Amino acid sequence: MIIVVKPKTEQKQIDELVELIGRYGVSVNKWVGAESTVLGLIGDTSRIDVDLISAQDAVERIMKVQEPYKKANRKFHPEDTVVRVGDVAIGDGSVQVIAGPCSVESEEQIIDIAKRVKASGATFLRGGAFKPRTSPYAFQGLKADGLELLLEAKKATGLPIVTEIMRISHLPLFEDVDVIQVGARNMQNFELLKELGHLKKPILLKRGLANTIEEFLMSAEYLMSGGNENVILCERGIRTYETYTRNTLDLAAVAVLKKLSHLPVIVDPSHATGITWLVEPMAKAAIAAGADGLMIEVHNNPKKALSDGAQSITPDAFDTLMKDIAPIKAACGRK
Amino acid sequence: MIIVVKPKTEQKQIDELVELIGRYGVSVNKWVGAESTVLGLIGDTSRIDVDLISAQDAVERIMKVQEPYKKANRKFHPEDTVVRVGDVAIGDGSVQVIAGPCSVESEEQIIDIAKRVKASGATFLRGGAFKPRTSPYAFQGLKADGLELLLEAKKATGLPIVTEIMRISHLPLFEDVDVIQVGARNMQNFELLKELGHLKKPILLKRGLANTIEEFLMSAEYLMSGGNENVILCERGIRTYETYTRNTLDLAAVAVLKKLSHLPVIVDPSHATGITWLVEPMAKAAIAAGADGLMIEVHNNPKKALSDGAQSITPDAFDTLMKDIAPIKAACGRK
Amino acid sequence: MIIVVKPKTEQKQIDELVELIGRYGVSVNKWVGAESTVLGLIGDTSRIDVDLISAQDAVERIMKVQEPYKKANRKFHPEDTVVRVGDVAIGDGSVQVIAGPCSVESEEQIIDIAKRVKASGATFLRGGAFKPRTSPYAFQGLKADGLELLLEAKKATGLPIVTEIMRISHLPLFEDVDVIQVGARNMQNFELLKELGHLKKPILLKRGLANTIEEFLMSAEYLMSGGNENVILCERGIRTYETYTRNTLDLAAVAVLKKLSHLPVIVDPSHATGITWLVEPMAKAAIAAGADGLMIEVHNNPKKALSDGAQSITPDAFDTLMKDIAPIKAACGRK
Amino acid sequence: MIIVVKPKTEQKQIDELVELIGRYGVSVNKWVGAESTVLGLIGDTSRIDVDLISAQDAVERIMKVQEPYKKANRKFHPEDTVVRVGDVAIGDGSVQVIAGPCSVESEEQIIDIAKRVKASGATFLRGGAFKPRTSPYAFQGLKADGLELLLEAKKATGLPIVTEIMRISHLPLFEDVDVIQVGARNMQNFELLKELGHLKKPILLKRGLANTIEEFLMSAEYLMSGGNENVILCERGIRTYETYTRNTLDLAAVAVLKKLSHLPVIVDPSHATGITWLVEPMAKAAIAAGADGLMIEVHNNPKKALSDGAQSITPDAFDTLMKDIAPIKAACGRK
Repeated sequence: MIIVVKPKTEQKQIDELVELIGRYGVSVNKWVGAESTVLGLIGDTSRIDVDLISAQDAVERIMKVQEPYKKANRKFHPEDTVVRVGDVAIGDGSVQVIAGPCSVESEEQIIDIAKRVKASGATFLRGGAFKPRTSPYAFQGLKADGLELLLEAKKATGLPIVTEIMRISHLPLFEDVDVIQVGARNMQNFELLKELGHLKKPILLKRGLANTIEEFLMSAEYLMSGGNENVILCERGIRTYETYTRNTLDLAAVAVLKKLSHLPVIVDPSHATGITWLVEPMAKAAIAAGADGLMIEVHNNPKKALSDGAQSITPDAFDTLMKDIAPIKAACGRK
Repeated sequence: MIIVVKPKTEQKQIDELVELIGRYGVSVNKWVGAESTVLGLIGDTSRIDVDLISAQDAVERIMKVQEPYKKANRKFHPEDTVVRVGDVAIGDGSVQVIAGPCSVESEEQIIDIAKRVKASGATFLRGGAFKPRTSPYAFQGLKADGLELLLEAKKATGLPIVTEIMRISHLPLFEDVDVIQVGARNMQNFELLKELGHLKKPILLKRGLANTIEEFLMSAEYLMSGGNENVILCERGIRTYETYTRNTLDLAAVAVLKKLSHLPVIVDPSHATGITWLVEPMAKAAIAAGADGLMIEVHNNPKKALSDGAQSITPDAFDTLMKDIAPIKAACGRK
Repeated sequence: MIIVVKPKTEQKQIDELVELIGRYGVSVNKWVGAESTVLGLIGDTSRIDVDLISAQDAVERIMKVQEPYKKANRKFHPEDTVVRVGDVAIGDGSVQVIAGPCSVESEEQIIDIAKRVKASGATFLRGGAFKPRTSPYAFQGLKADGLELLLEAKKATGLPIVTEIMRISHLPLFEDVDVIQVGARNMQNFELLKELGHLKKPILLKRGLANTIEEFLMSAEYLMSGGNENVILCERGIRTYETYTRNTLDLAAVAVLKKLSHLPVIVDPSHATGITWLVEPMAKAAIAAGADGLMIEVHNNPKKALSDGAQSITPDAFDTLMKDIAPIKAACGRK
Repeated sequence: MIIVVKPKTEQKQIDELVELIGRYGVSVNKWVGAESTVLGLIGDTSRIDVDLISAQDAVERIMKVQEPYKKANRKFHPEDTVVRVGDVAIGDGSVQVIAGPCSVESEEQIIDIAKRVKASGATFLRGGAFKPRTSPYAFQGLKADGLELLLEAKKATGLPIVTEIMRISHLPLFEDVDVIQVGARNMQNFELLKELGHLKKPILLKRGLANTIEEFLMSAEYLMSGGNENVILCERGIRTYETYTRNTLDLAAVAVLKKLSHLPVIVDPSHATGITWLVEPMAKAAIAAGADGLMIEVHNNPKKALSDGAQSITPDAFDTLMKDIAPIKAACGRK
């Protein structure tokens, strides 16, 4: 950590600042430039209260040298984390595909879709039981009944299940869910993250719609510092000024996350773009960028989907997609 | 609602679309242009499932004519909503000021600040007991103890209290809190909003850091549709590419919210800018833009604040601020 | 074009509005809803002055149905445009690679790089002679001398040349340049676009750092409406709140541009990310997303580059890159 | 300037880096931390080629301590710059108002508006003769004839004139123009800035729609380093994800610019919001935030304006605005 002292600060104030910093058990290196004095901190700076230091009169600016995340940091954990769910492994060089409808709507619907996506090569079934909706008047999901239906579909196909949690008190309902998803709007719902950090179950953490890569990894850190190291990161597009697509898919973030962290990273091209015909090119691009998996919305009848029909593809289109991405996977040396 | 049909759509498909829309009990006006057919819907379109309609093959685009919020909409509720807390009214033409530290730290601290901001003219005391922090390693607030200390400060000064909730299960602890704050990161924590909608207690709802004005009003709608019409909106800056300030304060949003909605709107210049010396000019500008109140971070010793010291002003600076904004209030014809 | 009339507008005002619109030679369809009246315009609305119409008291909002660009619009020109430069074709299904240094620095440098990138498979040489720099104190390029050196490198290798223009009066210097680049900062330098529209020479138009896809196509329309249909679009990242990468590469825009327009689209992963180790994954992802080509910064000694060294790769790394993207090209069925 | 060295860099590479930096005539302070080595540079770092340094293998990151602008920097020029045009001074504590139509349309129009805005207290007349338009098919201004008409209006009223330049070769036409405006889209048209830097005439420089405060000041630096210190900065809204307003007016930037620089700063609420009814609240807020002036679009018949009618106010509304802002000016102690 580096601290730039305000120009014309008196020596006494600088000494007080150095003394204050010293209390954190780090050593301080000072050098005096023509226009400003700079302090360099050596040691474990992660406990230093940046807010407190930056509030000192003498401080012009603080610059961090180290990343604020530790457990999620590849520097301290060079090997890739592989998250295992039954026989399936995410992060081992393979490309896993999670597919299913935005919302679970009926037993027939979810079992039908589950069978079809499995036949095409999906290794996880997704489906929303509790749905975060911008409008209180929109369909909010089948809730507990939806979870039941997902488990039926799991029984029928063997596919492990990924579904979103929106409230801590729902946690007991998720006991048989294989992977718990934290949605973009809850990426910084820290109380929820703390609770999920006490589980061992894999957590699929979606990037918030205006969160930086660092904030994303800090939310993973919340889970991991609680003891749960089974974290899967999911890039799903960020909010920008461009309105043609629902969000702007940030594929460079995939490569950056793989560099900074050892956690597996998957991509959701359906939510990222909101447009059916962009799912395939963005799925391919995600694999080429190094993603460990994809999350794709598939609906047996998008025209009658209760939510997100416009970005859902049919099982037939999904089958084509799986065939089309196979050569890309091979070209990238992926399993 | 207006639906643009894809060019070259067959008549049969258009007929099916019209039939589908008809099921929502609205009437459909069709006109055929040179390049495209457009359908205009008449009646109560708020129940129409936009996702479902936009997933139909025949649909190129849907354009909304009506706002999706109703209870928060000034069109259906032309008079200003005035939120009353004891003797204090927000939204009646006055400028109310909520002041206090980012975090409650000790009895001495909070009572001292409470007395001083009251003496300067503040009408509410703010203070964080449960703190949302990006890092799991940062100070997370005094929690229940912090709430106790706030109530002590209320007893000592008579100032009503504003403090943030982060978790539904904490609700019983907030019984004696006067105004419950929903932070920016929880603006779309819909489960929390649903619970708070069942209360009668005023809710101070902060705008999410990348949420539109419409989404902001839809979150207010969640509270109001549950039955709680005591909602105070708070603009606290949005995330943009500019990094000099912590966020970009969107003061036009204040005037827009006052136009679109009847709810009171306050501004938090401390969080919006993150810089002490910007608090005063932005507080003044907020009043000039029409805000019903301000929320200001004040700390008796910002240099030792456990959080957000860099944006907190001292009680003396707060006193000066209150004197400096008085003529602006008068110039704007505000009480 | 659809015009939403303000609620409670008097009939007389609506009639005047209809009459005003009628002067543009379009017919007007009116329908009266419960809360608002909507006018639908039929015919060629491209001449309607949207600003003037939206300024009428009676008008609440205008919604466009048709795209404002015509010559760049795939609807009116379904076949892909192929831009040919000598033997090389961009937009014919192949993946062309433009490579070279950010700045031309010396005869030795540019010829050396040209030979090496050609040997690795590049089909164009890029190099900046006139450099747009944020700081007036930074190296501004070798200017006319730089153009001379580029032509030397062309003579030595046969590679056609791509270089940026910054000023209309420099145009005579660009006579022997094969493709003229318009940089991101000049995407809406309309006077420059008008002049380049009078040429027949191919123009490589970069997307502005905060411009929408529609604005990008409107700038292409400036070139094309002047008579120059040899336009190559280049996605090079947009500005967002994320600061880890220099810009956020918007790969969905590649697929969207290919859908909305018939013009070829290339991607510049070097400027988009600003980081050497992101060039390869983003180059691969760009091809998977459907790009017609790549623009890559290559420097024989990035450590001594006079500009953009941090994002330039060495000729050896470029050679590896070309080998690594070959299977992706094949997997995507590209030449 | 501070340079963070990559972890595990060999001593030899560090020595080479220190030697390279030493060539710029600055001295280098090195300190060795637990995980990384940091170099602190002392002396005039403005000549250091940041691009070159950041391209060295050993370099992880460079952090700037000093601002890159000098002539525009308040640190080196503590007194406010006052730009004088005839009797009018901008930056002396007064609030100057520039008013007039988006486009000059006819002699009658411009003279009528000029007389009326002068009567209401405007001290400058604005009017577009050369108009930057997104569409090549939109009205592009009366061009040289428009400039003639502006001069007629100046003759008739004595009001100095502000109008936009779009092309260097038009410069001779601007000889009698009092203040030359550089539009937002040309803020980084560096060739244009270089030419205008050779004049003595005041330049009104608008902030680019996605440019940072630092980039804005660097463009002012282009003008000033050429010798022209008569620069007026204009905040006119930035592009964000919010679409209700045309742009997001960044009023904190006004206070920040006044702090970082000695140049006068004005605000254009018309372009910033694009909505007539937001002009007044934002004009008031701009003054409260410390702006030295306002730029307001006024049209005698907004309904028939050839451009930007939706954001233009009538002379009557302008008169009311001037009366309404008077008490705010007084309350802020402004002349």
